[in-house]
Amino acid sequence: MSGPHKEITIYDIAEALSLSPATVSRGLKDHPAIRKDTRKRILDKAREMGYQQNMFASNLRRARTNTIGVIVPRLNSYFMSVVIAGMEKVANAAGYNLIISQSAESMKKEETNVRTLYNSRVDGLLVSVAYDSDSLSHFNLFLDKSIPLIFFDRVLDHPQCTSIVIDNYKAAYEVTTHLIRQGSTRIVHVTAQSKGAVYADRLRGYRQALRDNDLAFDESLVLAGNLSEQAGAEAARAILAMSPLPDGVFSANDSCAVSCLRALKQAGISIPGQIAVAGFNNDPVSKVVEPNLTTVNYPGEEMGELAASTLIRRLDRLEGASLNTIVLRHELVVRDSTLRKKP
Amino acid sequence: MSGPHKEITIYDIAEALSLSPATVSRGLKDHPAIRKDTRKRILDKAREMGYQQNMFASNLRRARTNTIGVIVPRLNSYFMSVVIAGMEKVANAAGYNLIISQSAESMKKEETNVRTLYNSRVDGLLVSVAYDSDSLSHFNLFLDKSIPLIFFDRVLDHPQCTSIVIDNYKAAYEVTTHLIRQGSTRIVHVTAQSKGAVYADRLRGYRQALRDNDLAFDESLVLAGNLSEQAGAEAARAILAMSPLPDGVFSANDSCAVSCLRALKQAGISIPGQIAVAGFNNDPVSKVVEPNLTTVNYPGEEMGELAASTLIRRLDRLEGASLNTIVLRHELVVRDSTLRKKP
Repeated sequence: MSGPHKEITIYDIAEALSLSPATVSRGLKDHPAIRKDTRKRILDKAREMGYQQNMFASNLRRARTNTIGVIVPRLNSYFMSVVIAGMEKVANAAGYNLIISQSAESMKKEETNVRTLYNSRVDGLLVSVAYDSDSLSHFNLFLDKSIPLIFFDRVLDHPQCTSIVIDNYKAAYEVTTHLIRQGSTRIVHVTAQSKGAVYADRLRGYRQALRDNDLAFDESLVLAGNLSEQAGAEAARAILAMSPLPDGVFSANDSCAVSCLRALKQAGISIPGQIAVAGFNNDPVSKVVEPNLTTVNYPGEEMGELAASTLIRRLDRLEGASLNTIVLRHELVVRDSTLRKKP
Repeated sequence: MSGPHKEITIYDIAEALSLSPATVSRGLKDHPAIRKDTRKRILDKAREMGYQQNMFASNLRRARTNTIGVIVPRLNSYFMSVVIAGMEKVANAAGYNLIISQSAESMKKEETNVRTLYNSRVDGLLVSVAYDSDSLSHFNLFLDKSIPLIFFDRVLDHPQCTSIVIDNYKAAYEVTTHLIRQGSTRIVHVTAQSKGAVYADRLRGYRQALRDNDLAFDESLVLAGNLSEQAGAEAARAILAMSPLPDGVFSANDSCAVSCLRALKQAGISIPGQIAVAGFNNDPVSKVVEPNLTTVNYPGEEMGELAASTLIRRLDRLEGASLNTIVLRHELVVRDSTLRKKP
């Protein structure tokens, strides 16, 4: 019987080898005070007694806690709450608990979160990175010990880590093409000031759609902020000051699109007649605003489920790190905010 | 020198007493295999060596981790994300990190979360309880060791714990009185199936306002569900089947109020002409729906800030447990969804 509650401890190994538990502990941690041959005896005995069975990879020190750490930029988006609901569903069914922390879009805070979750001895990590996160070094606590790490939505590339994403380039291409087909030719793109691939990919999709429809790319039509509600209102002010007036807006998220749409309406602009507006994420607010918002449906719950199940399969050694990227399907949802041509 | 990185460990105590570290560890945990006099020797030596200095209160095992655990029912509400933002602000400024878990409105899951956060060695806990949470026993891991525990929003009563709330009775009384003054006499109340005080207090406020205005309380007008968007649509269906039709709706949250309002509109009901609709929380969606929703503004960020700062003052021993309840101010926000009488 070696169920989760009958774990082999360092005390058992110490007893079997007639060593002190401190020596065993240090040996397992490759402490310099322990001689090489002693260390080998400890590791061999640990393997023989099945000490490794409940441990992850080479990191013999960490007992399974059945806890998964999650780091997200912010918890204040509908999208993120749906992703986390998907993770909870899979994790709970497999007997894991989630503990969640926010980076507040700061790589520095993300680094602190990594350390906190490491000290909480999570079995693995699910991460969507901050706007300014552009290196992997602050994940070394996990990577060096081969503790599994899965990125979702906003991802970084690492040979050990699987990433779960949608095709942001293609989705943005589809939104922009739709706006052009509805007669928009001067389309503003509201995006994030971010070092990550998500918003760069959406910008690329927007540019390529313009190019494929013989429309010139105009840098002054790209408004980069933090995609908050307030950023949407600011984008509307910038748009109203442009001459000639744009006839389309593609915002990289819905909450920003909705506040932009409302501010344009309040200024007397007819939507979609004068300006068509599209968002991204299919947040509930997209169905509440009038006219209802055209957007991209993003499989948040599925993304959360897949992130958690991929991590758990990795923990159970059912799957190696060869799985590099999982791309989920997205879907353009056309509503009244862009329908300038009656069908 | 006894900074945080030069902690006295069980190995030091074991050496000083010529005992095994396992015995010291068990003695500190009050393990039944350790004799009483041995345990006393261990505790005395631990105190003498300053083992307690870095520990919390009588809980010798726990070193400060500068981590605060948060348990919330769900992360999918704007209100909760604002509360957590307030907590993060105060916690980060004081050098603490938050780790957050969801109970999914289940006391059983809440119990698991308590254990997970205990094992993550959080310094204290901030909790808003699940719908069905009606006892404190699952918090004993913390209460027995005097690890501070603060309740916010949905609270339970315990002599050691401070609660941070608003006056739900009074707020609901004000909403209902407002609806009555606008000419509504047959007012539906949409509420939660919950064992907690929040929704019971709102129901009491609703009933008292009816009574004070000589309107009869009609149990068939109280619709109890889970206050989700779907529950709002279901409430609308139930309302449309009532005869005579109600002329007012007071929903205990905004997301439910908004989906109810939209479903009533889609069925051809004029809002507020035929039915006035009010919500609770002042979520952003209340300003997006047309007509804009009358609601109660709830100081979420302040609630989060106060919960965190009260906990941190308790950890720093600047404040004892005598502070029982903090009641924050709320505010009725009147918008077009209830304005049946022009001013």
